[in-house]
Amino acid sequence: MYRAQIVGATGYGGLGILELLLQHPDFEVSSLVARDDAGKRIDEVYPHLASRCDLIVQAPDAASIGADCDVVIFSTPDRVSMGYAAGLADKGIRFIDYSGDFRFATTQHYAEYAAAHPGISDPSHQAEALLERAAYGVPELFSDRVTGAAIVGNPGCFAAGMIIGLAPMFADKLVEDGQVIVDALTGSSGAGKKPAPLQHLSHLNDNVVPYRVFSHQHVTETEQTLGALAGSKATVHFVPHLLGTTRGILCTMHVVLSRPMTREAILDRYREFYAGQPFVRVLNTPPTLKGTAGSNYCDISAVVSPDGKRAVIISSIDNLMKGQSGTAMQNINLMFGLDPRAGLDRGPTYP
Amino acid sequence: MYRAQIVGATGYGGLGILELLLQHPDFEVSSLVARDDAGKRIDEVYPHLASRCDLIVQAPDAASIGADCDVVIFSTPDRVSMGYAAGLADKGIRFIDYSGDFRFATTQHYAEYAAAHPGISDPSHQAEALLERAAYGVPELFSDRVTGAAIVGNPGCFAAGMIIGLAPMFADKLVEDGQVIVDALTGSSGAGKKPAPLQHLSHLNDNVVPYRVFSHQHVTETEQTLGALAGSKATVHFVPHLLGTTRGILCTMHVVLSRPMTREAILDRYREFYAGQPFVRVLNTPPTLKGTAGSNYCDISAVVSPDGKRAVIISSIDNLMKGQSGTAMQNINLMFGLDPRAGLDRGPTYP
Amino acid sequence: MYRAQIVGATGYGGLGILELLLQHPDFEVSSLVARDDAGKRIDEVYPHLASRCDLIVQAPDAASIGADCDVVIFSTPDRVSMGYAAGLADKGIRFIDYSGDFRFATTQHYAEYAAAHPGISDPSHQAEALLERAAYGVPELFSDRVTGAAIVGNPGCFAAGMIIGLAPMFADKLVEDGQVIVDALTGSSGAGKKPAPLQHLSHLNDNVVPYRVFSHQHVTETEQTLGALAGSKATVHFVPHLLGTTRGILCTMHVVLSRPMTREAILDRYREFYAGQPFVRVLNTPPTLKGTAGSNYCDISAVVSPDGKRAVIISSIDNLMKGQSGTAMQNINLMFGLDPRAGLDRGPTYP
Amino acid sequence: MYRAQIVGATGYGGLGILELLLQHPDFEVSSLVARDDAGKRIDEVYPHLASRCDLIVQAPDAASIGADCDVVIFSTPDRVSMGYAAGLADKGIRFIDYSGDFRFATTQHYAEYAAAHPGISDPSHQAEALLERAAYGVPELFSDRVTGAAIVGNPGCFAAGMIIGLAPMFADKLVEDGQVIVDALTGSSGAGKKPAPLQHLSHLNDNVVPYRVFSHQHVTETEQTLGALAGSKATVHFVPHLLGTTRGILCTMHVVLSRPMTREAILDRYREFYAGQPFVRVLNTPPTLKGTAGSNYCDISAVVSPDGKRAVIISSIDNLMKGQSGTAMQNINLMFGLDPRAGLDRGPTYP
Repeated sequence: MYRAQIVGATGYGGLGILELLLQHPDFEVSSLVARDDAGKRIDEVYPHLASRCDLIVQAPDAASIGADCDVVIFSTPDRVSMGYAAGLADKGIRFIDYSGDFRFATTQHYAEYAAAHPGISDPSHQAEALLERAAYGVPELFSDRVTGAAIVGNPGCFAAGMIIGLAPMFADKLVEDGQVIVDALTGSSGAGKKPAPLQHLSHLNDNVVPYRVFSHQHVTETEQTLGALAGSKATVHFVPHLLGTTRGILCTMHVVLSRPMTREAILDRYREFYAGQPFVRVLNTPPTLKGTAGSNYCDISAVVSPDGKRAVIISSIDNLMKGQSGTAMQNINLMFGLDPRAGLDRGPTYP
Repeated sequence: MYRAQIVGATGYGGLGILELLLQHPDFEVSSLVARDDAGKRIDEVYPHLASRCDLIVQAPDAASIGADCDVVIFSTPDRVSMGYAAGLADKGIRFIDYSGDFRFATTQHYAEYAAAHPGISDPSHQAEALLERAAYGVPELFSDRVTGAAIVGNPGCFAAGMIIGLAPMFADKLVEDGQVIVDALTGSSGAGKKPAPLQHLSHLNDNVVPYRVFSHQHVTETEQTLGALAGSKATVHFVPHLLGTTRGILCTMHVVLSRPMTREAILDRYREFYAGQPFVRVLNTPPTLKGTAGSNYCDISAVVSPDGKRAVIISSIDNLMKGQSGTAMQNINLMFGLDPRAGLDRGPTYP
Repeated sequence: MYRAQIVGATGYGGLGILELLLQHPDFEVSSLVARDDAGKRIDEVYPHLASRCDLIVQAPDAASIGADCDVVIFSTPDRVSMGYAAGLADKGIRFIDYSGDFRFATTQHYAEYAAAHPGISDPSHQAEALLERAAYGVPELFSDRVTGAAIVGNPGCFAAGMIIGLAPMFADKLVEDGQVIVDALTGSSGAGKKPAPLQHLSHLNDNVVPYRVFSHQHVTETEQTLGALAGSKATVHFVPHLLGTTRGILCTMHVVLSRPMTREAILDRYREFYAGQPFVRVLNTPPTLKGTAGSNYCDISAVVSPDGKRAVIISSIDNLMKGQSGTAMQNINLMFGLDPRAGLDRGPTYP
Repeated sequence: MYRAQIVGATGYGGLGILELLLQHPDFEVSSLVARDDAGKRIDEVYPHLASRCDLIVQAPDAASIGADCDVVIFSTPDRVSMGYAAGLADKGIRFIDYSGDFRFATTQHYAEYAAAHPGISDPSHQAEALLERAAYGVPELFSDRVTGAAIVGNPGCFAAGMIIGLAPMFADKLVEDGQVIVDALTGSSGAGKKPAPLQHLSHLNDNVVPYRVFSHQHVTETEQTLGALAGSKATVHFVPHLLGTTRGILCTMHVVLSRPMTREAILDRYREFYAGQPFVRVLNTPPTLKGTAGSNYCDISAVVSPDGKRAVIISSIDNLMKGQSGTAMQNINLMFGLDPRAGLDRGPTYP
């Protein structure tokens, strides 16, 4: 059994990977680390874990991070893992990070991301030397790099939905001028468990709230990844909307086709592109938000406009699974040379 | 007091106008007509009406339609009101219709709509002679025609959100090539109260379901109206999404600007365009779904993309109010020369 | 026009009375006072108020409280209004308070309440002399006292649902031993707009959370009021449950009947008891949570157990209306000798 | 691998056991039978099953029922399985039934149930001879009988929540006069997937609807089971409430204690009673609806009233899991001598 440590264990991201690891045949959780609720049993923090996990949350410090484990999962705010990265690398301990710290190949790309992020004031990177050793964790595209990797930057939740949803279009240069318009819908859990006015049930229930219009920080990694696939600049005009639901991201993505394509041809191409990928499902009808809830699937479908000139691609993921801990689990499996499906066999919860 | 008859009184549309008329200073409800629940007291059908209305629902027939009233409100399926129209017109009884029967100026335009409507098989119009006498009931644009009109075709709910949201852009020819991409979100009440798999709470709760992608029947009237404003063809690429909420329509509408505009300039232009309109509010921040719930407001805001070349316009309405009965009430007020605000002074329900 | 000042104007209670006053024929809002958001326009705090109210929120201080108005509404935490009470009374300014400060006739009763309240540490009352001048604002029972009153203590939300729901049973001594078991359900808005873990949408959505089992502070005023009606001790075994909805309180109340009663006899008695009360509706079928939403109604029905020995009484109110600002508006109307229905004619929002 | 056939496969009950069997190490699904959607692929009926199951739904007939399998799961309406029971028993094929057909030991008990059931007109039993061979499938109480059984009557969803929640109280004769008051809350999926006015999202969203007050058909089996445990008559005064959520049953159960008990003593007794039971969790704080969602757990806690004379027991289950397919899977495991936990290791979905 490999041993995993979760840092930021009491947030939704930490909880998500904890639950997956608890049912994983090859991993055990060696320790939980978090600033909030340190000293408490995790099933006191999350009563639904009763009889499933009774580990005590430890406060983070230089000694505790990386102690007695084979892999560290950082479900922490931006710029936390980069401070511990060199120490872990020196000791040969692998890690995966949920923030933007290790999603970018160069400090320049990171700086672009940092500038767009409302929570980051310092655009410099504190572990520059490790960037080239890190893999960007979209396993559907980069399994070669992730397999055996020591450092993985887990993608942003919206980025996961957009990149998987659009990769075949960009790889085939089907997108006129590389321009995509995306209206995305997300459940409230994407913002984490910290109470805030926007997440108050009385405000958000039955509501839809557009936010950070054209300025969300997940656009950077999406444009870089899609642009690299196409070999030319990709531009994503992105409007996120917060929904009064707990989970899920639905991306409705509009492109002008660079050459005429039927709907069937697009779906065929997607099926070919994702052949062998256990967590991408290309559907004949538009995916729904709940169709992936609780699972690691990314469901995708496409419709072509009556004039044949445009297509809309719709993708659905569970923001806490394929958008976060599910993809992390898949990446960790690859890091350790395991079957990417290990620990991820649960289907969507429906109804 | 004017006397109003509601046909289709037991559906959500009939209920909506009933509630508005019950609080209107100048109207009383003379009779309720409906096929479903005929013979029952309306507060038996809708217990929340207890102590507010105890009228008995009457079955529809040639004698009952138009009896003892000054105006008939048809909240009925397509092709119902056109069968009664000539009879009412002969007797000089005004009417407003919630379906597409009287939204179009010509039989050709109607046929285009009928072809796009999944529920209409016969594209001919049975009251052709009356079409030129009917006003299309978007009071923000056509109050001159609606004022004093004998026949009004109330707009479709999505059309209301899109037309009010985009009219200034098209009137000023700000939309490159007349092309608009619209992702719209709607609560479940838009489909009416008839039980159906898609509206089952276990299916729709926490869900988002894209449907009729690029093929919704409200596009026809939207394109015709916006095109007429611009004096050139308008094309709306429209993707509706059903939400697990009861009320509300939020339209996120993307255009390429035909000339550079700042966000402030767009908002100023909207404020100027809608000056004096009591139910349009141009906001500095994106409107929310719940910000108009229960009211007759259409809230609108705009954001310009960082490159200055694109704008997104977001509009929010309550689909049962500004998208249906609220606009109908406003139209009826104009038909009778009353203040358009009469009976419509309730604000949004928040939280 | 009478002039009203709202203290605590930026909370849900302040917002609720503001919206009612804005549509009231005999009142205008002279000023809004609140610690939070002082200096902002109220429609900046609550964008849905755009074009309805643009007053600037003032910070509370000795000078501002009671300035330039005929009545002050305190929608403030416990023990705030009692500090201003003497000053207002001296100047002859009427006030109504949403907290427990003026709900009790004696300091002894107040101390009992204070002991049960988790937020009150000091059980003494700072305006003892005024208690006997204050009316407890359940207008269905105490309109004589409230009419013309200078000080009114508005009831707690759960107390409103229980007292109106049970008053006829206690007045008629129909409750064996004065014992009632109540399971109550409440929407999240009852806890106010302050963000908190319990109100986070990701936690509360689709959830039901029992809390303060047998120890909620609204029991005190309920037992005192019902006991006084019966002339003997009343005991309420009360279990509140928080729901993932915004509004509404449904109380399911179980009693052993002190003498056999049919369901019809109970409903008849309720109808007789509440004859002439504009906001109590006695229904033949169980009330629903949404059946009163947005309105000032209290809906009530009853079912007798098959053995005829027990009854369940179910009441439904909107916690922010009949449970708070609606009742306050009704009380203010009585304080000023107006029709109790003034400004309260809006029906429930359905669907 | 054992082979299982699901009859009524396209309803929520059939779907639930299908999903559990798909992940079960010792079972495979040999065929799906259902009247609705016969001839379709199951992942066409439920698109979220894409890539998980592509079986074609077969129409039910005498030949198909029981063909090529070791066990049949009947997720069918009352009085369906009793028609096939003798034929299956003759062939030595085991079966479990979700309806009330095999929950009762005698025809007398069945007739009592049938009389209370609004959907049953004929109170006779068509497979009387098999009743004594059937086990009532509450594995926490009757694992001895269920283990190796050929016929199991799966309990009603509310019955599961009440029986597990109250068994220790009745077994210890702690309930004065055997009287219990239960207010229960249930999500909409309990009524199945058939569209109906009560389950329409526009009606049920944000709503609570009390129904079948004192007359729900699950009371019969609950009273019989609890009464048998106590050795004296048990009476359950039961008020179900439908909630605007998809899943979950929360039962709040009030008793007068027959002898004084502290909360700690009650919880200790529950822990002792359920020692070794993998799916019962006795919590120190009240369980929540979402705390068991998606899992097979029954969470229970208790609070004693301040006067020490009463207790409230609160239980939470997922109505589709512990209330239906989860318990069925546990029973099937016991029928085949497997670990009761097999295929049921998924924890609750939170947030």
